[in-house]
Amino acid sequence: MAANFGSDNITPACEAVMQALQDANRGTAASYGADDLTARLRTRANELFETEVAIFPVTTGTAANSLALSQIAAPYGAIYCYEAAHIVTDECGAPEFFTGGAKLIGLASADGKIRPEQLTHAFGFADEMGVHHVKPAAISLTQATEWGTVYANEEVAAIGALTRQRGLKLHMDGARFANALAYLKCSPAEATWKSGIDVLSLGATKNGALCAEAVVFFDPKLADDFERRRKRAGHLWSKLRFLSAQLLAYLHEDVWLENARHANAMAAALSARLREVPGARLLHPVEANEVFVEFPEKTVAALESAGFKFYRWPLHVSESGVAVRLVTSYMTPKADVEAFIAAVRHWSVA
Amino acid sequence: MAANFGSDNITPACEAVMQALQDANRGTAASYGADDLTARLRTRANELFETEVAIFPVTTGTAANSLALSQIAAPYGAIYCYEAAHIVTDECGAPEFFTGGAKLIGLASADGKIRPEQLTHAFGFADEMGVHHVKPAAISLTQATEWGTVYANEEVAAIGALTRQRGLKLHMDGARFANALAYLKCSPAEATWKSGIDVLSLGATKNGALCAEAVVFFDPKLADDFERRRKRAGHLWSKLRFLSAQLLAYLHEDVWLENARHANAMAAALSARLREVPGARLLHPVEANEVFVEFPEKTVAALESAGFKFYRWPLHVSESGVAVRLVTSYMTPKADVEAFIAAVRHWSVA
Amino acid sequence: MAANFGSDNITPACEAVMQALQDANRGTAASYGADDLTARLRTRANELFETEVAIFPVTTGTAANSLALSQIAAPYGAIYCYEAAHIVTDECGAPEFFTGGAKLIGLASADGKIRPEQLTHAFGFADEMGVHHVKPAAISLTQATEWGTVYANEEVAAIGALTRQRGLKLHMDGARFANALAYLKCSPAEATWKSGIDVLSLGATKNGALCAEAVVFFDPKLADDFERRRKRAGHLWSKLRFLSAQLLAYLHEDVWLENARHANAMAAALSARLREVPGARLLHPVEANEVFVEFPEKTVAALESAGFKFYRWPLHVSESGVAVRLVTSYMTPKADVEAFIAAVRHWSVA
Amino acid sequence: MAANFGSDNITPACEAVMQALQDANRGTAASYGADDLTARLRTRANELFETEVAIFPVTTGTAANSLALSQIAAPYGAIYCYEAAHIVTDECGAPEFFTGGAKLIGLASADGKIRPEQLTHAFGFADEMGVHHVKPAAISLTQATEWGTVYANEEVAAIGALTRQRGLKLHMDGARFANALAYLKCSPAEATWKSGIDVLSLGATKNGALCAEAVVFFDPKLADDFERRRKRAGHLWSKLRFLSAQLLAYLHEDVWLENARHANAMAAALSARLREVPGARLLHPVEANEVFVEFPEKTVAALESAGFKFYRWPLHVSESGVAVRLVTSYMTPKADVEAFIAAVRHWSVA
Repeated sequence: MAANFGSDNITPACEAVMQALQDANRGTAASYGADDLTARLRTRANELFETEVAIFPVTTGTAANSLALSQIAAPYGAIYCYEAAHIVTDECGAPEFFTGGAKLIGLASADGKIRPEQLTHAFGFADEMGVHHVKPAAISLTQATEWGTVYANEEVAAIGALTRQRGLKLHMDGARFANALAYLKCSPAEATWKSGIDVLSLGATKNGALCAEAVVFFDPKLADDFERRRKRAGHLWSKLRFLSAQLLAYLHEDVWLENARHANAMAAALSARLREVPGARLLHPVEANEVFVEFPEKTVAALESAGFKFYRWPLHVSESGVAVRLVTSYMTPKADVEAFIAAVRHWSVA
Repeated sequence: MAANFGSDNITPACEAVMQALQDANRGTAASYGADDLTARLRTRANELFETEVAIFPVTTGTAANSLALSQIAAPYGAIYCYEAAHIVTDECGAPEFFTGGAKLIGLASADGKIRPEQLTHAFGFADEMGVHHVKPAAISLTQATEWGTVYANEEVAAIGALTRQRGLKLHMDGARFANALAYLKCSPAEATWKSGIDVLSLGATKNGALCAEAVVFFDPKLADDFERRRKRAGHLWSKLRFLSAQLLAYLHEDVWLENARHANAMAAALSARLREVPGARLLHPVEANEVFVEFPEKTVAALESAGFKFYRWPLHVSESGVAVRLVTSYMTPKADVEAFIAAVRHWSVA
Repeated sequence: MAANFGSDNITPACEAVMQALQDANRGTAASYGADDLTARLRTRANELFETEVAIFPVTTGTAANSLALSQIAAPYGAIYCYEAAHIVTDECGAPEFFTGGAKLIGLASADGKIRPEQLTHAFGFADEMGVHHVKPAAISLTQATEWGTVYANEEVAAIGALTRQRGLKLHMDGARFANALAYLKCSPAEATWKSGIDVLSLGATKNGALCAEAVVFFDPKLADDFERRRKRAGHLWSKLRFLSAQLLAYLHEDVWLENARHANAMAAALSARLREVPGARLLHPVEANEVFVEFPEKTVAALESAGFKFYRWPLHVSESGVAVRLVTSYMTPKADVEAFIAAVRHWSVA
Repeated sequence: MAANFGSDNITPACEAVMQALQDANRGTAASYGADDLTARLRTRANELFETEVAIFPVTTGTAANSLALSQIAAPYGAIYCYEAAHIVTDECGAPEFFTGGAKLIGLASADGKIRPEQLTHAFGFADEMGVHHVKPAAISLTQATEWGTVYANEEVAAIGALTRQRGLKLHMDGARFANALAYLKCSPAEATWKSGIDVLSLGATKNGALCAEAVVFFDPKLADDFERRRKRAGHLWSKLRFLSAQLLAYLHEDVWLENARHANAMAAALSARLREVPGARLLHPVEANEVFVEFPEKTVAALESAGFKFYRWPLHVSESGVAVRLVTSYMTPKADVEAFIAAVRHWSVA
């Protein structure tokens, strides 16, 4: 079968996670999070983030993001983010649903990162408009970004400073947080609350879990009543131990980072090799596990015919070629990279 | 360890379900439901219900109920149900959240079943009030009910007839549908669409799944856009195969019914033996896997001290004693029943 | 034309209010509440309530109630009230809409008043249920009640004490607040914040305004961001001076109380005379401007045929007769009372 | 007092409207729209639009827009509009609130008009994204636009054709519909349903009413249940005759168009004269009653110091000067235009 770079969500659970599920599947356990595994997850999260956090397992990234945002933005609030952020284009209005109607205000960006000066300008506009405009409430950053780039901690911190100055809250959509962290080579604390993040959507499903994400508040007081928000969204599992078990295994020692490092390495390998291929144009620095590359239409068509899986990327429009997204995962074989590069070379020359 | 009759959600996944998860955990698969297991689940559902249905796996019963209701009730709609239905008291306002504000109108009932004449009366009131009142939209029945009783198919059909006559929709909260079916000894079709049910929340978690429920529409056209409702609620799994796999295993041949039969048999055994115990008063016929029984306070306290797990039931208030709920499950050992009865006898005599 | 006791909302604006509108209709004025009349209304409200309040004019009672409730109840909150309160039966789900899905929990009552012990019991149930149940947030009283009775200040205060004890908020639906006040013969302060009310829906439309109500917060800090709630509900008038003008004229000296006293007097006259009519049965003490009375069906039919206007009241079901509601207003002529009583006597004898 | 070009909502009601309110203020009338004036408004609307319409008076433009949009866009729907449309920037999230979370997707435009090809592109993106993206539901045009330009009927019709082709609905925010119509010199029918408009927010407040707008559906079937949406938003007046009376007077013969023609003429006069002033730069064609003009900062500051009222316009950023918005109304005196031009000339020369 030809290589599949369609997404990192086509993967199964990694071995450690599946084993943890089997181990958890013994005997009865208290429901709704009163079990031992959930308690242990709390301890592990505190240790990992080097501070007391409030962690809530949920089952999808959309739920994690939307629940997190609903906690920090009033229904009449404004949430500032990249204009093509996942929460804007890929969640079917979930943030609006969960917040009760808050408005996502999209900011333009070439590389998926938003900048402090854009926020300052947007706040100025909101101030001019007063009661007629939604009230600045929160900012959401995606880490790694939708274009496979990674915010430096200083970049996050600059936005964090602005956020605190206005009394707003800063959310990080960390669907690929592990990949970003593997790139940044810093501690989870440095990449989050030490840089001003108030609440993190901690992804795991794309990087080795079966169906587990978590919402992490770095100030537990900010999580007041969050339990009820999760419950009324149908996201409180009765057998919660099975979400906690996944996350515990995922965050055990370096499991998650090892997974991410492999995915990143495969993306780096892809991009390094693509740089040498005539006709291939990398659109962004490859800092996590996504490669955005432009090929001539005939190359893309040939790759598709040959059975390679990936997405033509609708957000990049170009006259010179077609943009495609290649995503690597914790289990992408090196051979897939080689096979793909060989095919690209073949069709580029042809 | 003393017997635990706290709930059927304290159980692990049954063997068939856990095996199915492991089997599904091989290689990559298309995400968001474009996988083979989800396709097979659709086929199995059609076969099981003897008609073409639209089935959507989700991860909790609250999600199943609320998504189903949001599909059939406008934000200005009225949903009629038992006044202490799970959707009223136990879902933290999820139905209101998902429907955008529809009103649950609770009807009194001694045994958890609502009656056609109550609905006729309620519709008459709505008609008198006109635009000032929420608009009758849907009816929700719980099967088995919150008091462990089971609607006869004729009882459902009578409400179904009324529902269709008014142009409304009929929902069944089947968190314990398997237990009801095991009691009714009829086909799934007879217990649902043949009796007028439009949409079913098909429970599996309490009866052997790890985290799987499903919303089943008996007219696929009624499911228009339901995909988007599920997505924007954060209930579309990227690795959906793992929900489908659970449901497939659960609905394979008689797995689900065998599980339910065992749970029901244990509840029947409990109630049969309790009938002989002086001081124990059964509050309702035991038709599924829940036993509601009143004991003197000192008996309850003694059972608790002895380590037995169950809930004092807040909805039943009595001067003569304390109501407790005992729930059996697919894995309740016969020995637990015996141990409990022995203890009750001991403390009743004492 | 025969007398019309259908409602107090069939009336035009009283003279003082209409004159104020004409006076306000001169020259330009700052929009959205930055005008002089709105400033003067604020001053008048502070004076009237003997404390610094935050007052927000709106255009309907439904808007006033729902906006007020949305300020004090989270989307996952519970609002306790009489089970047939106007907010439950007559506002088409507006409270659920504005709050984003909070649940109204209706308490039974013969006379429309709820009691502290009912609340204590309901809170106990909520505490047992924990995260699965909506969170107690607010209590709403209707003054005068839906049955034309009036809470004594002590009755309000007892609920107010309980409210504060739990950290909840207390709302008063004062659609007929002036009628209640005229009955209570106390100060507006005594009837509200001094008895524990946090926010009042101050009605004016039924008692002489054209289209004006107000939301009054007795702690201005509780009104944070309320401006934005009003705006996003489409209830911030650009020409707000025309709402403020009505309220200023209405609350000028005793205009509102004089109007209410007349309405109450007419209701009192009706009830006094009805007490002497054989076959008429008063259902509740008449303390404001509504009379609920039961007649034999033939009397009701005859009155209707004779052209009298009133409503058969669907919430009271009796085998002995038909309940009707008679509402008097600031402009009900004494002659209408006489004509109605004469007709009743005539048909009762016949 | 210096001239006030701040907005057209600083005006009082015009004479005809105020007279109608006084005339309506006699005797009792059936409430909630069962009165004669409301019936007459329906007849007048049918006549005016040359087809059977469903017309619903409401009290603000925000309410009209949001209620209209909630009728044609599901909570998971997309509404396409100009990126700085009033519904996006000036209504504090009301469309999101009323629709239950639909997403406004803003399209760039220099002159406030959106183009069919932008919509085609946006629909293509939505199709690519499938269930992960909000579902195309509606398009909203502002007429006259936020930049004082007016869509030609052909421009509307081209969008209308595209709308019908996709099975979507087309809304017109006609807060300044009269001004647009006065410019277009066509019939109300031609400017709306004959060009593909499904629902119109018909403004009146800015152009002579006290507090009246209307939602007009050109296919009455599209208005199913709209009554309940209006009610639950607190926008059904009990004394609805007073809204209907305003609209009847406003739409009587040419009252509304005469008002608009005057406003437009004053704006035209302003722009004609400004064109001759060195240093003044008109930013857009002046087709309705708004003039957007750029002056040097010192001119703007001087005009402000002299007491002239207008807004610096935050949406236009320029290094060469400051953009201001001048709005004329039905009662703008010619002398105000002259005085303003004289002042501009004075300060431009200085």
